[in-house]
Amino acid sequence: MPTYRAPVADTLFVLNDVLGYARHANLPGFSDAGPDVLEAILGEAARLAEEVVQPTNRIGDIEGCARHGDGSVTTPAAFKDAWRQYREGGWLGLAVPADFGGQGLPYTVHSAVGEYFSSANMAFTMYPGLTQGAIAAILAHGSDEQKKAYVPKMAEGAWTGTMNLTEPHCGTDLGLLRTRAVPAGDGTYRISGQKIFISAGEHDLSENIVHLVLARIEGAPEGVKGISLFIVPKFLPDASGDPGARNAVSCGSIEEKMGIHGNATCVMNYDGATGWLLGEANGGLKAMFVMMNEARLGVGMQGLAVGEVAYQNAVAYARERLQGRSLSGPKEPDKKADPIIVHPDIRRGLMTMRAFNEAGRALVLWTALQSDVAHRSGDDKERQAADDLLGLMTPVIKGVLTDKGFEHAVMAQQVFGGHGYIEEHGMSQFVRDARIAMIYEGANGIQALDLVGRKLALNGGRAVQAFFKEVGEFCEANRADEKMVPFTKVLKKGLNDLQAATMWLLQNAMQKPDNAGAASTDYLHLFGLVALGYMWGRMVKAAQQKLGEGGDAAQLCEAKLVTGRYFMERVMPETAAHLARISTGADTMMALPAEAF
Amino acid sequence: MPTYRAPVADTLFVLNDVLGYARHANLPGFSDAGPDVLEAILGEAARLAEEVVQPTNRIGDIEGCARHGDGSVTTPAAFKDAWRQYREGGWLGLAVPADFGGQGLPYTVHSAVGEYFSSANMAFTMYPGLTQGAIAAILAHGSDEQKKAYVPKMAEGAWTGTMNLTEPHCGTDLGLLRTRAVPAGDGTYRISGQKIFISAGEHDLSENIVHLVLARIEGAPEGVKGISLFIVPKFLPDASGDPGARNAVSCGSIEEKMGIHGNATCVMNYDGATGWLLGEANGGLKAMFVMMNEARLGVGMQGLAVGEVAYQNAVAYARERLQGRSLSGPKEPDKKADPIIVHPDIRRGLMTMRAFNEAGRALVLWTALQSDVAHRSGDDKERQAADDLLGLMTPVIKGVLTDKGFEHAVMAQQVFGGHGYIEEHGMSQFVRDARIAMIYEGANGIQALDLVGRKLALNGGRAVQAFFKEVGEFCEANRADEKMVPFTKVLKKGLNDLQAATMWLLQNAMQKPDNAGAASTDYLHLFGLVALGYMWGRMVKAAQQKLGEGGDAAQLCEAKLVTGRYFMERVMPETAAHLARISTGADTMMALPAEAF
Repeated sequence: MPTYRAPVADTLFVLNDVLGYARHANLPGFSDAGPDVLEAILGEAARLAEEVVQPTNRIGDIEGCARHGDGSVTTPAAFKDAWRQYREGGWLGLAVPADFGGQGLPYTVHSAVGEYFSSANMAFTMYPGLTQGAIAAILAHGSDEQKKAYVPKMAEGAWTGTMNLTEPHCGTDLGLLRTRAVPAGDGTYRISGQKIFISAGEHDLSENIVHLVLARIEGAPEGVKGISLFIVPKFLPDASGDPGARNAVSCGSIEEKMGIHGNATCVMNYDGATGWLLGEANGGLKAMFVMMNEARLGVGMQGLAVGEVAYQNAVAYARERLQGRSLSGPKEPDKKADPIIVHPDIRRGLMTMRAFNEAGRALVLWTALQSDVAHRSGDDKERQAADDLLGLMTPVIKGVLTDKGFEHAVMAQQVFGGHGYIEEHGMSQFVRDARIAMIYEGANGIQALDLVGRKLALNGGRAVQAFFKEVGEFCEANRADEKMVPFTKVLKKGLNDLQAATMWLLQNAMQKPDNAGAASTDYLHLFGLVALGYMWGRMVKAAQQKLGEGGDAAQLCEAKLVTGRYFMERVMPETAAHLARISTGADTMMALPAEAF
Repeated sequence: MPTYRAPVADTLFVLNDVLGYARHANLPGFSDAGPDVLEAILGEAARLAEEVVQPTNRIGDIEGCARHGDGSVTTPAAFKDAWRQYREGGWLGLAVPADFGGQGLPYTVHSAVGEYFSSANMAFTMYPGLTQGAIAAILAHGSDEQKKAYVPKMAEGAWTGTMNLTEPHCGTDLGLLRTRAVPAGDGTYRISGQKIFISAGEHDLSENIVHLVLARIEGAPEGVKGISLFIVPKFLPDASGDPGARNAVSCGSIEEKMGIHGNATCVMNYDGATGWLLGEANGGLKAMFVMMNEARLGVGMQGLAVGEVAYQNAVAYARERLQGRSLSGPKEPDKKADPIIVHPDIRRGLMTMRAFNEAGRALVLWTALQSDVAHRSGDDKERQAADDLLGLMTPVIKGVLTDKGFEHAVMAQQVFGGHGYIEEHGMSQFVRDARIAMIYEGANGIQALDLVGRKLALNGGRAVQAFFKEVGEFCEANRADEKMVPFTKVLKKGLNDLQAATMWLLQNAMQKPDNAGAASTDYLHLFGLVALGYMWGRMVKAAQQKLGEGGDAAQLCEAKLVTGRYFMERVMPETAAHLARISTGADTMMALPAEAF
């Protein structure tokens, strides 16, 4: 059975020593979670994730969800108690404003503990995750009445949320959607249509389910400009705000999927269901994107989280499994064989995963901090700069962390040899679960297009220029520090490749947009490498300083230096290959007629 | 439901136009399968694979295998008729010598059709595949009596074969194996022990199952030098050679696996079972390697085969699925949206898979031809050269084609978006099935070590030098051909990177073997890129010649030029990254103490 230990010490190192969490004490919520409280929160989340949530992961995969004749859906039996404890701990409303029943703590803290829960059980953690996304959309675009009616119930986990975008013929291209909304004359709408792939669409964990549904109001313009967002609760709130009459929405079936079996993926049928407009008519896409952006960061986190737990189990197996002898002579001569962690190729896998995970964690937390600054700072300029970075990093985190999280789950499975392929050890589940994160909330190809086609040019390239400047200045500022040179030299090379690729896009994609599409995925990963490399630069710098000061963190800091060096030596060389591919453009890629394939 | 079309035209192009199949007519067996017969055989195999075997793939995944209370195992119901037709077509014994009931045709032809069957149903095709491996081992090491008793029955598929290596504590490191063999005094042995992960260990397709079992004869030396190979049939042959008394071997359980559900993966218990020594006492490893090497080529083929069928289904979906508009303006303005094949990032996936699959097919067939020459040529020198290349390419084909085959199944699944994640479309199955090929028959890390630690230095590096010479001369010979320059230039650059990596190993791995281990996987893939790039060079050359001659193959040849260019532009840049990683050595990788992970 797989195990899990939340990386609390690493999270604290990143927050306190690398990102200077304490410097943000002036932002609302941060003073409620000063260093001591932060450590206590992480510790408590770790305990819940390790002892309560993680043990439900494998059995949840086996049992899965079931739809019954009456359209009801049951989740794995073990989820009930875990859900109760998760709710009672107040984890769902951690970062929700206190006015709406939450604790108002930083989004950064929410992100830090979010990793632990997703590592412990990704399918389970989707239930609160989707609810948090729906809360964000209601808070951003709902009326005061809507906020009051829904958010407190959702923040305590009494009600959960969903997002309803996809239809059978309509995935990425939301302009094609057909679900209809007809004004009922009383301010409500009658919603009719079918939505598919609705995670947590129907289940037995909460008293009510708040569906956020994209639909087209009668007579609305065609395409994405005619889409509106609606709140469609499973049970209509009664006069006292409790679940009342059943709404005309039901689960038609649940999908048989490769993984995340513990989460019910539903076909939802809306048969004239009552819905309330959320935000403006025909402004649904904008409103949905609040939820979507938050969800994309959450999905990126899932990639990291599953990669991390898979890595931990690979380490444990590599330490235990005796097979063969070290190439440099027996390491445990009293045993029949050495543990396989002595073999360089096993190390290669472990170090690759470790180097990525630690930088990924830093990138997620750094970006979460931008989100807090963007939403809570009183300084306009600071807020704008943070919001720029948040928007820029969202597709990078979603795309890169999920592509790599999956790749690393596969790598961890490989460490187990044949034992990784049988379901018993749980490594197959990590691979099957991680796979969806590359697809949902906008397939990674869409993330790449978002970065290249939107984020890059936004406001005259302000965000990307600021990022290049920050990374460049970091390299420059550490040029005189000879212990930093091995790191900054490689980082600078990566930045140069990224800037060259950006320049190539500026020169070649304007007149020929296919060149942007042809470059997009390579550009996304090139960007990710530089962002992760920058995180390594900052972590190494912090580790060197901490080591200089002495203290009890020596082992963690020494390991940081080694792991950072590994990232520079073994991961960063990929930037040149990405640049080379980008520079070849779209001509060859697009040359074959469709029928020649 | 997924579909499949066997790539007969491409196979014929590679065999006839690229590899000069007809030039080998002097080798035994080749004259029985001249160009016309070859085409007829491929066509008939294609029909069987497409119409009979492929339709059993998805239902075989769903139904899986079941073990019953009496230890018997049933395969998916649909497999029975497919197996009957496969047997009746004589496909199992295609390349088995006519003296032993086969057709004695070239191994090259066997490989060509083997791809089709593995694409159609990988789990199903493992039953004959393992049988063919067992036949090879018996032919190479068996006594005349053993050959006569087993091979004809196996060549017609009345009996099937297995290979029994792995034990719970003993996978890669066969020296640890504990299964015992005690001489019974009558020339037979009593075999006792437990074997795990035995593919096709017990099933209902054949009348008898011939287990080849590694075991340790009482008093044998420790480690791999004390291992012998035994023939242990499920039913002991009676006086007339038919299945007689039940042997003391039974299936204790079957594994629940990530994929290849149609193939029974068994725990096999040997309780004093009667066995016959195959080959020499304590020479088991050598005997098993005959089977293993053949199996490794077969597994590499599986990677290619699943990648190919996944690619084909991604193409079909990309042509059909309407979503979004081309970046260069609507391509099908009369429809609500364009087919997604117009989007560059979708093309990127399709072209990457295509460029790899076509080169992979060529590499497999080129290597199969080496096998035929090595085994059938009358010329010692020619035989040795071919055997050198065969040995060199075996780990490359196994490791690279399975790593990439899996990666491409994932890529193909991604084209389907959310529809790829649900089991209904069959894309998940391709991913789950392809995953095992990276693990069994020696995990890919072991293939990399075989290449770097054994094959490279064998006979003073004779094989690798010959390969470098061949590729170098190809580049040189085409230097004056300006249409070839864009290809040979990139190929030469890749060859230079590979030679530099080889030189680095020579200089750094002798005194420090960990440097070889640390380089191994990158070196394997670097080698694979150059080998595949060389295949592209030769395919492009052949296509250009054929285009110059006119004729009806223009579309195929034009597509070859485009696809070859794509490989050079988009895939080959990776060689530099591999070289950069290799050159960093083992120091950082090995620096952390095991307990620091």
